[in-house]
Amino acid sequence: MCSKPDEDRVRLRLDLAYDGGGFAGWARQPGRRTVQGTIEEALARILRIEVALTVAGRTDAGVHATGQVAHVDVPAQGWAGLAATLARRLNGVLPPDVRVRAVAEAPAGFDARFAALYRRYAYRVSDAPYGVDPLCRHHTLAWPRPLDLTRLAAASTCLLGERDFAAYCRRRDGATTRRRLLRLDWRRDGDHLLVATVEADAFCHSMVRSLVGALLAVGEGRREPDWPAGLLARRERANEVAVAPPHGLTLEHVGYPPDDQLAARVEQSRRVRL
Amino acid sequence: MCSKPDEDRVRLRLDLAYDGGGFAGWARQPGRRTVQGTIEEALARILRIEVALTVAGRTDAGVHATGQVAHVDVPAQGWAGLAATLARRLNGVLPPDVRVRAVAEAPAGFDARFAALYRRYAYRVSDAPYGVDPLCRHHTLAWPRPLDLTRLAAASTCLLGERDFAAYCRRRDGATTRRRLLRLDWRRDGDHLLVATVEADAFCHSMVRSLVGALLAVGEGRREPDWPAGLLARRERANEVAVAPPHGLTLEHVGYPPDDQLAARVEQSRRVRL
Repeated sequence: MCSKPDEDRVRLRLDLAYDGGGFAGWARQPGRRTVQGTIEEALARILRIEVALTVAGRTDAGVHATGQVAHVDVPAQGWAGLAATLARRLNGVLPPDVRVRAVAEAPAGFDARFAALYRRYAYRVSDAPYGVDPLCRHHTLAWPRPLDLTRLAAASTCLLGERDFAAYCRRRDGATTRRRLLRLDWRRDGDHLLVATVEADAFCHSMVRSLVGALLAVGEGRREPDWPAGLLARRERANEVAVAPPHGLTLEHVGYPPDDQLAARVEQSRRVRL
Repeated sequence: MCSKPDEDRVRLRLDLAYDGGGFAGWARQPGRRTVQGTIEEALARILRIEVALTVAGRTDAGVHATGQVAHVDVPAQGWAGLAATLARRLNGVLPPDVRVRAVAEAPAGFDARFAALYRRYAYRVSDAPYGVDPLCRHHTLAWPRPLDLTRLAAASTCLLGERDFAAYCRRRDGATTRRRLLRLDWRRDGDHLLVATVEADAFCHSMVRSLVGALLAVGEGRREPDWPAGLLARRERANEVAVAPPHGLTLEHVGYPPDDQLAARVEQSRRVRL
């Protein structure tokens, strides 16, 4: 399958936000309410043709997004009449837990998945003795013990760089688990809310939640700060790492290169990950 | 009824947070799920006696709180054995949409309602063309037209000071509608989220939501900035003011004087408002 749309089709970039709580994840599944299925149905209703979305980050069930990106190829003829109103019409049809922040014709060479330089996630944890502030409870994990920001930071720094994250990934045969972790830091927002920012060229399945799970064990003092990086020597998933629950996780941003470097980035990503 | 507890009772101050979406408001009502009823039941279960809460701000159905304050008088004997664990035990019994942030013995003269110097509310509105970010939709109003911060600010400033807010209140016979509006300003948090901060010595029923409703009409250009203050000349509720929906409103803070001025403040409030 080629990444370029046909001559008579136009590729659209969709910027998306959703509350993952009501969805069985991004990926379409028969009989389940999914983000992809919901948006594809809305597009089909307006465009009167079946379309398929390609997404930057296939989020799991319960994971949220504020800065998800997808693309879809649509007939050029239909798009001409819809360009000014498609976003508004989509949001009129979509339920309030998923929003199309923007729709625009994508630059030449754009591919939501393979042109991405990096994905950035946030993981929110409250270590308040009373749990989580009720208004944040759908996207923040309640942690029952105090977390130490210095320990979290020390353990996180040791994980940065290009590494084999097999210990933190659900293995797929033949697929590499090598990833470049570009950023992993923690901050306190107010007294009790901790926010981890995690950025990598790409993530394998459950990688962010596994990293966060390992780091929380360090943050509460149950493991030493060198433990998460030590696991990188493993060639298999580390079963002693608890995968953090999905509802604390939000895909916040997907980074792309300048337009004139999109095609080269797509070629490079395909070589590594297809 | 006297504000002072009996000699053998101790007055507790409770700091509370809740998501108002699942409650028929603060005030206990037979057969309805209310914040007061839910917390009183939890207290009764732990203390094994019936108790009655007094609250700083009686929020309407759907209105949230991050900084609500209440008091309750309990037997001194029971409290002695519970002081260290009551907050944790309450939160263990309470549902996740209401949290007890803190419980402590109140200083002499404290009364959650009458000792308060001011209440501070926030009202959140999104004027994004796509509606509201899904993760914020339960506590943010979607406004379908762009709002002008300069117009909102101009109209808000004219409302400050001690005034008769009859135009913005649901009238109760014999009760004054005179209030001192201490603060009313708007800011943008990000591109599309507007937050109004509204502070007064006290509010009459639906006053914040009526003020916000009038100001939104100014912000979108349908009314002139001097219109909301002009209505203060009325001695009756102004029916052309749309009351803004409850889910955008959050009680964020209740201010009290220093401990040695609590009793004097209670006397002063009772004279004005009972």
